[in-house]
Amino acid sequence: MSADPVFNRIAVIGAGLIGGSIARAGVAARAAGSVNVWDIDARVRARAAEIGIGDVFDDPAEAVRGCDLVVLCAPSGAMADAAAAVAPGLQPGAIVTDVGSVKAAVAAAVTPVLPAAVHFIPGHPIAGTEQSGPDAGFASLFEGRWCILCPPKDADPDAVARLSAFWTRLGARVDTMDAARHDLVLAMTSHLPHLIAFTIVATAEDVETLTESEVVKYSAGGFRDFTRIAASDPTMWRDVFLLNRDAVLDLLGRFSEDLTALRRAIRWGDGDTLFATFERARRMRKGVIEAGQDIAAPDFGRSRPPG
Amino acid sequence: MSADPVFNRIAVIGAGLIGGSIARAGVAARAAGSVNVWDIDARVRARAAEIGIGDVFDDPAEAVRGCDLVVLCAPSGAMADAAAAVAPGLQPGAIVTDVGSVKAAVAAAVTPVLPAAVHFIPGHPIAGTEQSGPDAGFASLFEGRWCILCPPKDADPDAVARLSAFWTRLGARVDTMDAARHDLVLAMTSHLPHLIAFTIVATAEDVETLTESEVVKYSAGGFRDFTRIAASDPTMWRDVFLLNRDAVLDLLGRFSEDLTALRRAIRWGDGDTLFATFERARRMRKGVIEAGQDIAAPDFGRSRPPG
Repeated sequence: MSADPVFNRIAVIGAGLIGGSIARAGVAARAAGSVNVWDIDARVRARAAEIGIGDVFDDPAEAVRGCDLVVLCAPSGAMADAAAAVAPGLQPGAIVTDVGSVKAAVAAAVTPVLPAAVHFIPGHPIAGTEQSGPDAGFASLFEGRWCILCPPKDADPDAVARLSAFWTRLGARVDTMDAARHDLVLAMTSHLPHLIAFTIVATAEDVETLTESEVVKYSAGGFRDFTRIAASDPTMWRDVFLLNRDAVLDLLGRFSEDLTALRRAIRWGDGDTLFATFERARRMRKGVIEAGQDIAAPDFGRSRPPG
Repeated sequence: MSADPVFNRIAVIGAGLIGGSIARAGVAARAAGSVNVWDIDARVRARAAEIGIGDVFDDPAEAVRGCDLVVLCAPSGAMADAAAAVAPGLQPGAIVTDVGSVKAAVAAAVTPVLPAAVHFIPGHPIAGTEQSGPDAGFASLFEGRWCILCPPKDADPDAVARLSAFWTRLGARVDTMDAARHDLVLAMTSHLPHLIAFTIVATAEDVETLTESEVVKYSAGGFRDFTRIAASDPTMWRDVFLLNRDAVLDLLGRFSEDLTALRRAIRWGDGDTLFATFERARRMRKGVIEAGQDIAAPDFGRSRPPG
C-alpha cells in the first residue's frame, strides 16, 4: 500500500546537507512525487546530478516551475536571494518554505521578494550533522527530529497543514510557534552552544602553540566533543549569529555571568558552589534523554562494553 | 598462549567507573593475576562484591597487603586520604599509582603519606564516560586511549616500565610527562571544556524558566552534547577545579577574551571575523580525527544513513 505523495512535485533550492536530505527523503518517504533541485554553485549542481538526488536544473526559476512546494535550503543570509531567484517561476498557490536556523530575520527578508499569490511558511528542521555539501545528506536525517514551523498570523491553515503533513511523512515531529520565540529557544539550544564550541576550539588552537599538538593528542578528555560541533559549516553559522544577534547577545550575557560566578568560586576555593552547580547540570541530562533527544548510551555509544 | 600477568596481585582503591574498569580489565587482559578491591563506601563495596569485580575487602590496609601494585581510584581531593588508609598495609617495593585528573596537587598530597619503601608513580588514563559508580565500568574502557604517567625525577625506571607495561596490557597507549605540563594540557583538553559545559547547562536551566521545557525539547540543535559532559561526577569535577586552579583560571581568562572578541563581532555585524574564526575551528576537528581521538562518523554516529 503506497500513500499518495503529499506534494506532486517539489523543488529543493540549495543541495547541501539539509537540501540533499530533503530531496532523498522526499521521494523515499513518498512525501513528494518527484524532486527538482537547484544550487547556486555549478559544482554542487553537477555533483547532485551525479549522485542522482533529483532532476537538477541550471536555472532557478525553471527549477520551481510547476512545483506545489518549494523548499529554500540556502544559508540564512542567502535565503532572500534564493527566494528572489526562484520568484519568477513560482506558480500561484504554491507553498514556499525554508529551513533556516533563524526565523524572524529570514521571514522579514524573504516575504517581500515573493509574489503575493504563494503561501510562505517559514520552517526549521532541528536536524543535521557537522558535515555539509550534497554528499552529506541522507534520507533518514529527519526521523524522530522536531521540525518547527513559524506560520505568519494570516497564514492559510490548509497550507500549514499540508506542509506539516510533508514533514511528518519525512519522519519529523512538527511544532508551530512564532518566529521570535523560535529564535530565543534556538539561541539557547543551538546558537549559543555552537558559539561556545567555536570559541573554545579557537582558544585551544592558540594554546596549542604552547602545547605542541598535545591538545589534539589528548582531546578525548572532553575537548573532542566541542571540535565536532565546531566543524559545522562556517557560512551558515556566520549568518545565524548576524541574523539572531539580539537573542544570542542576551544569552551570551547570561552565560558570561554564570561563568564569572564559577571562575570566582574556583579562585576562592568555594567547592560547595561548584558542587551545587554541577549537580544541577547533571539533572538536565536526564531530562534530555527522557525527552528522547539523545541516546542514553555512555559516551554517545563511542566506547562500549563488548557484547 | 597466555602471557604472565604484569603484576601478581593488584589492589584497586575506589570502585567507581575507572576503578571498576581497571579491576575488570586487569584480570581480563592478564595485566593482574588477581584483583583486590576496596571502596570507602560500604554500599559500593557490597555492589562490587555482588557483581564480582574482584576480592572485596572491608579494611583498606588488608586490601593492599601482599599486592605488588596499588591503584588509587578516588576523586583527586580524596586521594591522600585513600593513600593514608592503605599505607599501613603496603609491602616494601610495591608500586603505588593513582588515576586522578590533576597530577601536581595529587602528587604533592599523596607522596608524604606513603612509606618511603614504595614506588609512587602518579598516572592518569584519559578515558571515561559521563557515568559513574561500580556498574559503569567495563574492561575495554582503556583500549586505544592514552594513559599519562608523571613519574617523579628520582623514580625507579624499572617501576615506571612495569606500570607502563600494565597500562599497555589494558590496551592503553602510555606517555610520560611532568606533572605541571600534564595539568596545563589537561586543563585545555578536559577541565576547561567540562567547566564550559557545566556553565552552559546551568545557564540553560535558568533560561528554561522562560522557555518552559523547550530547551530540553529542542536540545538536539547542539545543546544535548553539552549535557552529556555536564552529567559527569560532580565530586570528581569539584576537586579538579580546586586542585588545578591556576591552569584552569589561566585558560578561562584566554577563553573569556576570545568569547568577548566574538561577542563584539556579533554586536558590530563583523561577519568576516566570525567566518575566519569558524573556519579555523573547523580545521582542528580534522586533526582530532586524524590523531585517532574521535570517530569520523557524522554526529558521533548517533544518526546514520541506513545500511
